[in-house]
Amino acid sequence: MSEDTRWLNDVVWDEQGLVPAIAQDAQTGEVLMFAWMNREALELTAVRREAVYWSRSRRKLWHKGEESGHTQRVHEIRMDCDGDVVLLKIEQVGGIACHTGRRSCFFQRHLDGGGWEDVEPVLKDPADIYVKK
Amino acid sequence: MSEDTRWLNDVVWDEQGLVPAIAQDAQTGEVLMFAWMNREALELTAVRREAVYWSRSRRKLWHKGEESGHTQRVHEIRMDCDGDVVLLKIEQVGGIACHTGRRSCFFQRHLDGGGWEDVEPVLKDPADIYVKK
Repeated sequence: MSEDTRWLNDVVWDEQGLVPAIAQDAQTGEVLMFAWMNREALELTAVRREAVYWSRSRRKLWHKGEESGHTQRVHEIRMDCDGDVVLLKIEQVGGIACHTGRRSCFFQRHLDGGGWEDVEPVLKDPADIYVKK
Repeated sequence: MSEDTRWLNDVVWDEQGLVPAIAQDAQTGEVLMFAWMNREALELTAVRREAVYWSRSRRKLWHKGEESGHTQRVHEIRMDCDGDVVLLKIEQVGGIACHTGRRSCFFQRHLDGGGWEDVEPVLKDPADIYVKK
């Protein structure tokens, strides 16, 4: 790739070669999801301006939205003080980041008495998001 | 502890018994920092309503602000769809979350041509934050 990629050397990759990535709505500030990136994922994210993660379970690059259409347009890439966490400011295409059909993955709220409650609506049935072709 | 702690069993702890935790300003939505929690840290966070993390480098509980005074008052604790990430909605006492004296740890912005630029001001000299007693 012709683009200068030395900036990727400033990232402190963990022992698996990964870095945590937080996706935040660029307009509202809402935290939409959390995933992991390897070096190639972060490079592709910067080049395409669309979020590409590393799926630890499937052990492969995961272009977010490749199945659902719910891609993430990247407005900004931030890195934290220690260089070991990345924050993406994004526009969530389709308005749904979560595989459950909710806007954000962080829909479970801790209750004072213990337990968790779901506090965000399902906007679309996952069966309609992940349609077998 | 008398509080029902079964809700902690719903968290999917990693192989080190940790979970990533994102701290977000409850008012502005700004992502302020990222750290890790073990079970005890999350329990203490819920009981005290102040963020307690697990320091992986020092291998001990870290009551955020214990040295700097920049504690984090916890308004809400959220968990993601997979149960393996926690999001705290907090009020940052002193307005400074980062050990560099900046409001947020995510002050480095990726430049289109490569490289990173600092985009947030240092609000207080770290030498004045971490005063030896």
